[in-house]
Amino acid sequence: MTSFAFFQRLSKSFQDHPSHLKLILLCTTVTGGGLLAYSDAASSEVPVTEKKKVVVLGTGWAGTSFLKNLNNPRYEVQVVSPRNYFAFTPLLPSVTCGTVEARSIVEPVRNIAKKDFSSFSSEQKEVDVLFSEAECVKIDAENRKIYCRSNMNNNLNGKEEFVVDYDYLIIAVGANVNTFNTPGVVENCHFLKEVEDAQKIRRTVIDCFERANLPNLSEEEKKRILHFAIVGGGPTGVEFAASLHDFVNEDMIRLYPGIKDLVKITLLEAGDHILSMFDKRITAFAEDKFQRDGIDVKTGSMVVKVTDKEISTKELKNGGEIKTIPYGMAVWSTGIGTRPFIKDFMAQIGQEDIAAIFKKADKNNSGTLTVKEFQEAMNDICERYPQLELYLKNNQMRGIADLLKEAKGDVKKESIELNIEELKTALSKVDSQMKFLPATAQVASQQGTYLAKCFNRMEECEKNPEGPLRFRGEGRHRFKPFRYKHLGQFAPLGGEQTAAQLPGDWVSIGHSSQWLWYSVYASKQVSWRTRALVVTDWTRRFIFGRDSSRI
Amino acid sequence: MTSFAFFQRLSKSFQDHPSHLKLILLCTTVTGGGLLAYSDAASSEVPVTEKKKVVVLGTGWAGTSFLKNLNNPRYEVQVVSPRNYFAFTPLLPSVTCGTVEARSIVEPVRNIAKKDFSSFSSEQKEVDVLFSEAECVKIDAENRKIYCRSNMNNNLNGKEEFVVDYDYLIIAVGANVNTFNTPGVVENCHFLKEVEDAQKIRRTVIDCFERANLPNLSEEEKKRILHFAIVGGGPTGVEFAASLHDFVNEDMIRLYPGIKDLVKITLLEAGDHILSMFDKRITAFAEDKFQRDGIDVKTGSMVVKVTDKEISTKELKNGGEIKTIPYGMAVWSTGIGTRPFIKDFMAQIGQEDIAAIFKKADKNNSGTLTVKEFQEAMNDICERYPQLELYLKNNQMRGIADLLKEAKGDVKKESIELNIEELKTALSKVDSQMKFLPATAQVASQQGTYLAKCFNRMEECEKNPEGPLRFRGEGRHRFKPFRYKHLGQFAPLGGEQTAAQLPGDWVSIGHSSQWLWYSVYASKQVSWRTRALVVTDWTRRFIFGRDSSRI
Repeated sequence: MTSFAFFQRLSKSFQDHPSHLKLILLCTTVTGGGLLAYSDAASSEVPVTEKKKVVVLGTGWAGTSFLKNLNNPRYEVQVVSPRNYFAFTPLLPSVTCGTVEARSIVEPVRNIAKKDFSSFSSEQKEVDVLFSEAECVKIDAENRKIYCRSNMNNNLNGKEEFVVDYDYLIIAVGANVNTFNTPGVVENCHFLKEVEDAQKIRRTVIDCFERANLPNLSEEEKKRILHFAIVGGGPTGVEFAASLHDFVNEDMIRLYPGIKDLVKITLLEAGDHILSMFDKRITAFAEDKFQRDGIDVKTGSMVVKVTDKEISTKELKNGGEIKTIPYGMAVWSTGIGTRPFIKDFMAQIGQEDIAAIFKKADKNNSGTLTVKEFQEAMNDICERYPQLELYLKNNQMRGIADLLKEAKGDVKKESIELNIEELKTALSKVDSQMKFLPATAQVASQQGTYLAKCFNRMEECEKNPEGPLRFRGEGRHRFKPFRYKHLGQFAPLGGEQTAAQLPGDWVSIGHSSQWLWYSVYASKQVSWRTRALVVTDWTRRFIFGRDSSRI
Repeated sequence: MTSFAFFQRLSKSFQDHPSHLKLILLCTTVTGGGLLAYSDAASSEVPVTEKKKVVVLGTGWAGTSFLKNLNNPRYEVQVVSPRNYFAFTPLLPSVTCGTVEARSIVEPVRNIAKKDFSSFSSEQKEVDVLFSEAECVKIDAENRKIYCRSNMNNNLNGKEEFVVDYDYLIIAVGANVNTFNTPGVVENCHFLKEVEDAQKIRRTVIDCFERANLPNLSEEEKKRILHFAIVGGGPTGVEFAASLHDFVNEDMIRLYPGIKDLVKITLLEAGDHILSMFDKRITAFAEDKFQRDGIDVKTGSMVVKVTDKEISTKELKNGGEIKTIPYGMAVWSTGIGTRPFIKDFMAQIGQEDIAAIFKKADKNNSGTLTVKEFQEAMNDICERYPQLELYLKNNQMRGIADLLKEAKGDVKKESIELNIEELKTALSKVDSQMKFLPATAQVASQQGTYLAKCFNRMEECEKNPEGPLRFRGEGRHRFKPFRYKHLGQFAPLGGEQTAAQLPGDWVSIGHSSQWLWYSVYASKQVSWRTRALVVTDWTRRFIFGRDSSRI
């Protein structure tokens, strides 16, 4: 996420051309879910009897929960996504080691869409949700069109390109991997965002064992091949390290007894601790457990380069010393970034933002904002964007005007006037420091549900708006803003032990949380089919162990 | 199989250098199983206390049943195969449509080998079966060495090559696909021999549906994309056609209602009937059922060329007219061929065969064989190779000498003398006409078991040989020759209907055979794990249908 991203999106709400687009800004970048926004045409243009076309980009958490919860037959929905299925991404680390099968965590999006429209007549059911397996490559917001390309790579006559019109566009394409431009990462590292990634990791782990088991290899070479390096000590990296450790110690060493002592797992984290977003007790427990398990946790170690056989790190604690570590397989799970066509789209819709905000806030057209003008604008922004209020609270600022003080230095408050550059500085500070909602499945899913409910109640809320006051124009916004309800978070640590951070700072670690984890993940499955599959996969694993066939 | 293959292999038994190699000839080419032979060093060279090294190439039906049944701890076994698992290949057509999952039909070969050695002490267990995931690229029979190459294509430092010595070599690598050099087949067709092939077919079927579902395609183009062409009306092609028909009609049309009428399945067969190796009742039933199902069976249609969008056929019934058929996906299942390194190996060991046979049969060194000399040689050959006797019986020849008559024309029997060229003609006739054992899992599996039992009783049979008389040298062969026991064969025809051809020409068709098929296939699974998995997959399919996620 670029540092101006929030700012750009924020500012969009000031654009208020009634015949053009509005964007409700629900932003998160999430594993397979994510960046969610909608744009709508003014209702006055289209007769009520005509169905409005909602195009949904993406079939991750946000897109799918939108589809599941949308039950207003007045929309005609078209979903465009390169994957014709929804994947239960929190179980991806389990897929890497075969604790659950890839197929058990996916559900065709046609099934999901179909199920929820089954309450309508059969005629409506067939027309209401269309799905196209294609990637959106460009959004033309001005003309309400998206440009798509199908990406099947078999002999079906190359790539197919087509254009889709929309009345409302739901962008829920998720993020892509962020390599921070580290050289060699794309070429040599595995990622863990898609189902295919998990399958590839699984094959590669088994490849490493088979390779190390070949005759005529030196001990040193075997050690290199069996060195699994994981870059990034966030929840994904930690869970993968734990899964891999279990896989190796519960299953692989029985089949590869000759090389079991050569296996090494290293977790590289640039920060001071792994799982830094969790409670300190969980971090400490995880670090302890990993140490006991023999997983080498290297904190303060920033990866600066990856070649086919070595990872170079900068040891932050050690005066920036550069070290090289030989490895067999590397998994990169350090962070996420914005997809290029979304960056384009943001640039397209967000160019005049700062000027627009300034113009709208500067009620007397003086060319500068008084404290009062700024404060009024910020009050409205805060009502509309609860995150901002949280940020201000967390930063223990006594008021919004403190922002100004920060921007202008500690001068007397009332006399402050901001020009446009100073406003930019003040807002970009908010933008860079404010914590976004975490990029989790939970957030994306709640956003999708929220948006579906907005669409379900569109007509009702047009008549009786229930949202905050509009900045400009008359009346109130139609909908109450999205508020995220944190239900807790798990960090599976291997060996049937899981840390759970539940609301109200309640922390639970151990086997009981593992069973809680099993229950929650089973209950959150998108269909009865995947639920049954996941549970039978777990059962299979308990009875037969994980499979090590290289398929 | 080249026409001289049997002859070459047959002749090998005449080579009788005691310090060099002997080959017991168990030949079949089978889906994933196959071509099985062993060579051994004379026992006198190695002290009894020293373990002899058995190298097994391949982990298909023959190799795996050898491993499962070998229980003589006096051997040290090394398995070399590009696949670290055994695949239950008769279920591959089910995998193409997701009736069972790929992972459910595979079992790591290490598990199989391990299980059967678990009765020994733990020390022995660890050294007795080694596995290397690599491909054998060359056999040096003279020096008893094989040259191997590992084929992992990730960043594990390229390809690894190594050499393995052996005392006994078991060749069980199976066959590869035979395209009969038809242009475009390799580039454009799918095959159905490996687990990866089945997975690829599954993805492509779903791709075709997704592709045909994209906007802006002409009706004609949609029809092309949804035309599934299967080349070869043997058991594999027929079963795949039936599975695909079920998949499309039971699952896909519910999710793709708009395009269900455009789907077409065509089965192209060069012969006059499909399933020609089965009883005529089964062939007729299958052809009827396919017609009712709307599967277009085109017999007398030989594929001569395949491009990315069209298949060209020569209509044998229609005076050789060339037709072109547009298609979306093509599956090639017409036959199998010998792998190149096996051809090399055969050339290596079989060069002097004819001369050697002739020399050994020509007892008076006259340069020609009398009828008596030829007859004696053939008697021994027949005892050693029961297939040959069967061939002679099937061809209703009154005796072996009839062969001579065929070679020399109908002259008076006693006066016949054959020179070496005439012997070659006589034997090549046998070679070209004789039916080999069918290339099925059943044959390969029985051959593996037979060979393991030979190895288990090696010392015993060295002392008390129980086989036929040796051609040259003293005494008898150590082992009785392999005899194939046909237990019946299934042809699943879709819609829960299966044809079964059981021993004694007993034919059963319908739902009851389907349940027999389920029982037999479940019971024949290589491990309890795969058994449980296959049965749960079937259960899942009954309850939830097949999954259409493109992973």
